[in-house]
Amino acid sequence: MTEKYAELIDKVRATSPLVHHITNYVTVNDCANITLGIGASPIMADAIDEAADIAAISSAVVLNMGTLNERTIPSMLAAGKSANEKGVPVVIDPVGAGASQLRNETVVEQLKEIRPAVVRGNISEIRFLAGLTAETKGVDAADGDKLAGDEAMAVARDLALKLGCVVAITAAVDVVSDGGRTVLIENGHEKLSGLTGTGCMCSSLIGSYCGANPELPLESTVAALLSMGIAGEIAFANSGDKGNGSFRVSLHDAISRMDAATIEKYARVREA
Amino acid sequence: MTEKYAELIDKVRATSPLVHHITNYVTVNDCANITLGIGASPIMADAIDEAADIAAISSAVVLNMGTLNERTIPSMLAAGKSANEKGVPVVIDPVGAGASQLRNETVVEQLKEIRPAVVRGNISEIRFLAGLTAETKGVDAADGDKLAGDEAMAVARDLALKLGCVVAITAAVDVVSDGGRTVLIENGHEKLSGLTGTGCMCSSLIGSYCGANPELPLESTVAALLSMGIAGEIAFANSGDKGNGSFRVSLHDAISRMDAATIEKYARVREA
Amino acid sequence: MTEKYAELIDKVRATSPLVHHITNYVTVNDCANITLGIGASPIMADAIDEAADIAAISSAVVLNMGTLNERTIPSMLAAGKSANEKGVPVVIDPVGAGASQLRNETVVEQLKEIRPAVVRGNISEIRFLAGLTAETKGVDAADGDKLAGDEAMAVARDLALKLGCVVAITAAVDVVSDGGRTVLIENGHEKLSGLTGTGCMCSSLIGSYCGANPELPLESTVAALLSMGIAGEIAFANSGDKGNGSFRVSLHDAISRMDAATIEKYARVREA
Repeated sequence: MTEKYAELIDKVRATSPLVHHITNYVTVNDCANITLGIGASPIMADAIDEAADIAAISSAVVLNMGTLNERTIPSMLAAGKSANEKGVPVVIDPVGAGASQLRNETVVEQLKEIRPAVVRGNISEIRFLAGLTAETKGVDAADGDKLAGDEAMAVARDLALKLGCVVAITAAVDVVSDGGRTVLIENGHEKLSGLTGTGCMCSSLIGSYCGANPELPLESTVAALLSMGIAGEIAFANSGDKGNGSFRVSLHDAISRMDAATIEKYARVREA
Repeated sequence: MTEKYAELIDKVRATSPLVHHITNYVTVNDCANITLGIGASPIMADAIDEAADIAAISSAVVLNMGTLNERTIPSMLAAGKSANEKGVPVVIDPVGAGASQLRNETVVEQLKEIRPAVVRGNISEIRFLAGLTAETKGVDAADGDKLAGDEAMAVARDLALKLGCVVAITAAVDVVSDGGRTVLIENGHEKLSGLTGTGCMCSSLIGSYCGANPELPLESTVAALLSMGIAGEIAFANSGDKGNGSFRVSLHDAISRMDAATIEKYARVREA
Repeated sequence: MTEKYAELIDKVRATSPLVHHITNYVTVNDCANITLGIGASPIMADAIDEAADIAAISSAVVLNMGTLNERTIPSMLAAGKSANEKGVPVVIDPVGAGASQLRNETVVEQLKEIRPAVVRGNISEIRFLAGLTAETKGVDAADGDKLAGDEAMAVARDLALKLGCVVAITAAVDVVSDGGRTVLIENGHEKLSGLTGTGCMCSSLIGSYCGANPELPLESTVAALLSMGIAGEIAFANSGDKGNGSFRVSLHDAISRMDAATIEKYARVREA
């Protein structure tokens, strides 16, 4: 069953899709390097005077509102609309939704103006999008996220139906749903939560897979989260308790060496 | 004597305080990762429309003017004032004060509008704040800093009294003063000056400690600088002469493994 | 023949020139660390209210348009003009020239308003500047670059004559020309193309060498590209097939240990 996810990486490495990011300045370097590591080609361009142009020539667009501001909010809208017009898949990462009025209004407007292929967030962020009460503590997943498996499945499925796209909630067990099918991914390692940007990097990987396999947004999202989860496991196996710096290096190593055989071998994935 | 500093890390790791940064885009990723590494939770948010909101829900605010611009200068003021209203400790890092008129005016305005808990800089930057002649060469410490121990103590003490806050001058020997007590820290390694952002990371660590221990700004600042200095020593012991890349990885490793026992064991700290 | 390039590093390490960057937020941390690694001192300052002031006190200015926007475009012009007035060498890195109208117009204006000491790009970007048809796919070198050796020499020479400066095209074989002399550098490793920012880092190294040796822009550019290429070879020798994360760490290690003897030993450089 896992080969349908695993084989998608071959097309990423074969076609090297251009993935346009409008993303935050905290983790942008990790996003660029992880995009290269999985075999795609990153471009970061957030000026309003070129956002739509660059989106139009890209294979996927990733909109990450981690450090949104009045300059980049319109650029994200312009890039998303341009991508929609050209049939380029859009990944929305609503970083910190629920944490401020500005973030809340921004993501609501994005979802009104843009049709995403995939929305990825932690449970707090996705809960906010679903209109449920959310307590978002900053931009990292709160502890409660680890216990939210059953609820996460329902939230992801409902929001996917509401938005007509794939919704991914990343946590100890990742949930991916397109409203019809819902997939659970048990790969990963708790040390991933000790690094900044692992969520952002997941969104970049989703963009990379969707850019190469635009007709398969659910499978692409699953393959991306499998890649990150498995890379986290391999990274811990290679770096052990050395610490966060070594774990991060090993994570980038593992992504850059990821292939279909590795995904097939390690994947712990099932449909709900 | 060192246990009063060492034990403060336990509360950082136990409470994971949210540390709001408005900081530069050069070293922001290191700041986020070091904040996670010491056990706190970073959030970077510099839009004027959310800076005050985010500051109000945070446990500490770090204002670093490394790459200030007309968009972030008002955001820093808004975040600082909001933090002051809520009793949230503010750490000011006057990167490059003395190097341009814009930086000089900005830090003067910050100190007029915001009551910091801690101000941290190198000797050139702190000398500028103290109204003394400063020759700031860029954003990194000039050579003279290494020889400025005695002067540094006097400058730190005087500025602490003038501002009514803790002042920290980081150099080969760090000086921390609240005007009454002055503490000297001899930990550290010269290779730290070969990496960008070690000063910024110190300010993030100060924010992390102050966020968890707001009633103890002097001790928090000392504990933060001990953590960085000791991590530098451990990093050099582990990476040796391999080079700057390996040293940096080992530095993040050491911070993520830092605990009270390690601080107690290695601390070389004394009151002046 | 290689000693005239190799010896230039001694002056970088001896004088630690201040290198002012207005650059993109994707790779800015790598640029700062590589600048420190080679022995120079980075300062990143892009506010219009200080760009000219900082440029005037610097030893070199690097203008990299990787994530240009309406705020930084005027700052780049102000910094470049200020540097020209003071005789400070300017390095222009036209990232993504050819990929959007905004980038095209920006670099054309820069070359009209600023007299660069060195322009460095990949073949697509330099072809655009030369007024030739270019297909720029994003910000990374396209595959065709590897085959473009002979054409690259002609393009570099012609553009150098047209602009009256040094032009460098980085690829599997780097080409550096001042219009009179044209130099080919065969050092490097294909894994460099798996990391983001290796081109940006080359420009930072060129700025560092030019800052210390402003009277020798051709030799400084060659020495900078030799440093990067040789560091790539050493990094691969030390990290092997571990992956991109380890290769990156080893690259920074190798730059921080680079010296004249290493450059002389490994350089594969010849005049065309």
